[in-house]
Amino acid sequence: MKVATVGDYLLYRLHEIGIDHLFGVPGDYNLQFLDHVIAHPQLAWVGCANELNAAYAADGYARCKSAAALLTTFGVGELSAINGVAGSYAEYLPVIHIVGAPSLKMQQNGDLVHHSLGDGDFEHFLRMQREVTVAQAALTVENACAEIDRVILTVLHERRPGYLLLPTDVCEAPARTPTTPLKPGGAEFDAQALAAFSDAAEEWLARAKSVSLLADFLVDRFDLSAVLARWLDETPLPHASLLMGKGVVNEQRPGFVGTYAGEGSAESTRQGIEQADVIICVGVRFTDTITAGFTQQIPTAKRIDIQPFDCRIGERHFARVPMQQAIETLRQLCRRYASGWEKHCDTPPPLLADAQSGLNQNAFWQAMQDFLQPGDLLLADQGTAAFGAAALRLAENSTLIVQPLWGSIGYTLPAAFGAQTAHPTRRVILLIGDGSAQLTAQELGSMMRDGLHPLIFLLNNEGYTVERAIHGATQRYNDIAAWNWTQLPQAMSVECPVQSWRVEESVQLIEVMTLIAPGERMSLVEVMLPQQDIPPLLQKVSASLHQRNGS
Amino acid sequence: MKVATVGDYLLYRLHEIGIDHLFGVPGDYNLQFLDHVIAHPQLAWVGCANELNAAYAADGYARCKSAAALLTTFGVGELSAINGVAGSYAEYLPVIHIVGAPSLKMQQNGDLVHHSLGDGDFEHFLRMQREVTVAQAALTVENACAEIDRVILTVLHERRPGYLLLPTDVCEAPARTPTTPLKPGGAEFDAQALAAFSDAAEEWLARAKSVSLLADFLVDRFDLSAVLARWLDETPLPHASLLMGKGVVNEQRPGFVGTYAGEGSAESTRQGIEQADVIICVGVRFTDTITAGFTQQIPTAKRIDIQPFDCRIGERHFARVPMQQAIETLRQLCRRYASGWEKHCDTPPPLLADAQSGLNQNAFWQAMQDFLQPGDLLLADQGTAAFGAAALRLAENSTLIVQPLWGSIGYTLPAAFGAQTAHPTRRVILLIGDGSAQLTAQELGSMMRDGLHPLIFLLNNEGYTVERAIHGATQRYNDIAAWNWTQLPQAMSVECPVQSWRVEESVQLIEVMTLIAPGERMSLVEVMLPQQDIPPLLQKVSASLHQRNGS
Repeated sequence: MKVATVGDYLLYRLHEIGIDHLFGVPGDYNLQFLDHVIAHPQLAWVGCANELNAAYAADGYARCKSAAALLTTFGVGELSAINGVAGSYAEYLPVIHIVGAPSLKMQQNGDLVHHSLGDGDFEHFLRMQREVTVAQAALTVENACAEIDRVILTVLHERRPGYLLLPTDVCEAPARTPTTPLKPGGAEFDAQALAAFSDAAEEWLARAKSVSLLADFLVDRFDLSAVLARWLDETPLPHASLLMGKGVVNEQRPGFVGTYAGEGSAESTRQGIEQADVIICVGVRFTDTITAGFTQQIPTAKRIDIQPFDCRIGERHFARVPMQQAIETLRQLCRRYASGWEKHCDTPPPLLADAQSGLNQNAFWQAMQDFLQPGDLLLADQGTAAFGAAALRLAENSTLIVQPLWGSIGYTLPAAFGAQTAHPTRRVILLIGDGSAQLTAQELGSMMRDGLHPLIFLLNNEGYTVERAIHGATQRYNDIAAWNWTQLPQAMSVECPVQSWRVEESVQLIEVMTLIAPGERMSLVEVMLPQQDIPPLLQKVSASLHQRNGS
Repeated sequence: MKVATVGDYLLYRLHEIGIDHLFGVPGDYNLQFLDHVIAHPQLAWVGCANELNAAYAADGYARCKSAAALLTTFGVGELSAINGVAGSYAEYLPVIHIVGAPSLKMQQNGDLVHHSLGDGDFEHFLRMQREVTVAQAALTVENACAEIDRVILTVLHERRPGYLLLPTDVCEAPARTPTTPLKPGGAEFDAQALAAFSDAAEEWLARAKSVSLLADFLVDRFDLSAVLARWLDETPLPHASLLMGKGVVNEQRPGFVGTYAGEGSAESTRQGIEQADVIICVGVRFTDTITAGFTQQIPTAKRIDIQPFDCRIGERHFARVPMQQAIETLRQLCRRYASGWEKHCDTPPPLLADAQSGLNQNAFWQAMQDFLQPGDLLLADQGTAAFGAAALRLAENSTLIVQPLWGSIGYTLPAAFGAQTAHPTRRVILLIGDGSAQLTAQELGSMMRDGLHPLIFLLNNEGYTVERAIHGATQRYNDIAAWNWTQLPQAMSVECPVQSWRVEESVQLIEVMTLIAPGERMSLVEVMLPQQDIPPLLQKVSASLHQRNGS
């Protein structure tokens, strides 16, 4: 593609790093740039119903591809999206947020233009964006190409969002096709530190009687799942992920003991991880909801902790030992010493069958377990959905998208739009509660417009059940407006390609699941669940949160 | 009401300043505070479907009452709302944004809790909020009551949003019923400056042959519409408002010449204002969209400019002369000198009748003109709706809510929810396009839940017509997902109390208008309009924006 303008240059770089779709909402400061997007032979424009949803969709896309791009307009658009971008920051997703801005001339004049605060200061929003992005640039005619490259490289390196402010006149300024490809520099690497790390790890592993491994979301974010898989295939240590990174290890592999959640774990999962002499943590952050309130028992004295750019063994810190080199080192050491380690570990406990009760959380998650297929792409919204999904045993090559640190309810519905856009042929299963779905429901319309075919399970428990579990079980602030969910797809598409059901019995649920299993047609299944019924893990997590909130 | 805790104290103060409703979304860091809200005998909780909508609803409420309050949760909630709060900042609305936060103990520990960025820094969002609020406080047990008072007083004084970060433990800390009422200090006032202002104004007005007056939104925001009305009742100068403050003057009063929009004005409106020797501007800011791109001809050399806290006469600046004192001074001078001024001025031109054409923008606005009644509360979304509404002549005691500076599309749908909550018995008329309504549509469900009865005219022109007018008339980025609008109310309420119509002919529109005129039942009228048909003012505005964007 021929590059004639800064706008073209930016699109060239986005496409070069593997981005095929641009999510966003048009606005009068980004329309010119959109002309270049439409003219681009490979990049597709994906219009969303609003900017927050667009940011969520981009985040979901970034979880499936090398990176994502988001386009909004100055002020109103970028601030509507900023909560989604903050989520990408908290949970390490490389999203490039491009904001169409008033021309430099207007900015220099301090014109009182719409979408500004009317005070002539055009940097309010740039300052806000600095809190939730790792690199920012206010593009000018002079700096545009260099700054675009710098921001994109930083985003790829740190796996977190970046911000490009693109004034209308800068977008149209001349630029040339880059002569050199963007080369992400590898993580800073210190050979001496790696050697010291290797020695220290060897000392621990050589004398250990048992070793376990916890892997979590940062392995996925820094694109090292395959490297990790090779290690675990060679040496099937007792291993687990936490909810945040669930899916980062093949849950069908020998040695997988379940999803670890501190005191919220199944007993055998807890023992499988905590009782080892040495516990290797790879890409783990112990945040509150995934540990049932910091109840993990992973003492520093027996922990090897691998982070993206550095490592720790016990109290010793090794700077500039990147995750990939650390994993490779430990893999070699495990090959050498694993024969001396205890081999016993339990497979994760199956979900309890209880065919007698009606359709409740327990019955739903059993049915969902049976419904899963290899290659599924699941999304489970923060709430009963995510904490219920924690107990599933995923089939091979499955992906689970959850957002337990940022925890912005409603996120997964647009994220499913983004994920399915990235993976048009995979079976996408969205699990979301009624309270959450109301926040972002309009993106159903965009999914239908684009002919996507997610299978949506709308868990209707009449309100914010996750909040009820924490506080105010019967308070009316946890009620929501009661919707006719099965009518929503028809309202949001004139050609409604969706089949909808409301199910109130387990047998109905299973029948519908059989019908929709091929995943070729978008489906919405409203699952009626008791208002205060919650999955066991959520019981433990919410009891902890309730207590920590000081009530 | 007895005050026992900081949470109670805050509610006591909110109620004291005239706030009867709290808009927001529950989250686990604000649930304890919500218990106090529910227990409060006068304050009502109004749950919204998402936080941006809640912020818009609070903004709409603040346009109808003394102030508004908004409740969200830390991180995810407050950032979702921040675009709405920024709009309140840009357009001068006193909204108190209360954010439930993790306990001080968690913050001091730097815990990796959900809804944080996971880096132990709990001030990211406070720093962001500083850009769009006039006062902020991170409440502690020690400072809470004093800081609550300070923030509320600043909000009332400056008529712009404030931010209160309320940790869960601070909310429950003991507090006492305040012993003194909150006393907003008047604007800073300099008697000498006022005398100088009076002398200078007298010099101009005494020798003027003609004087005109432009009043705009800041008169409304600083609650001086009644004072202005007294002045214009005594001395019916040729006068106008701009679109931003439309409704601030009685449009049925002699001397009203129409809505002024620079070159976008009707010729007689423009002459009525611009040709005077002295033009008095009260509470006016000349921003781009309301002046057809800064085409106003109001030279400094003949302008008296009254702002909230200071004034100018020609090039002379008078600090610390507040709007109220300036208005009073000018009113007295007008009584003294008006007899010598030219009296001729034209009433605003009627909308053109053109009964032959089908249902188009022109026909719609004529029908809407006939539909208006005294006391109506109209909301018109940025786009064809607001720029069409600019040409209406409002009936007496009417209010028009528009957002032409911030211009965040979708704003008016939740704002109508807030406005109708403030004025449950007034006839509320919402005018909004299909593209805009998709951004915030879920708030229809909340309005139905609460039994509100707005009359909604959904202008369906298949996409972002306002953007088409500016750039990319036929580009597909200005298309949106096609919805069945008349089915939406049923999908968003199990007891749907709404009557819906789709109208394609003027005669149908007028029939439906007759039917729904009493305004006792929520109604949704989908008005089918040509895709690229736009009101005349928008033609001029968008041509200017297109040119200024440099294309």
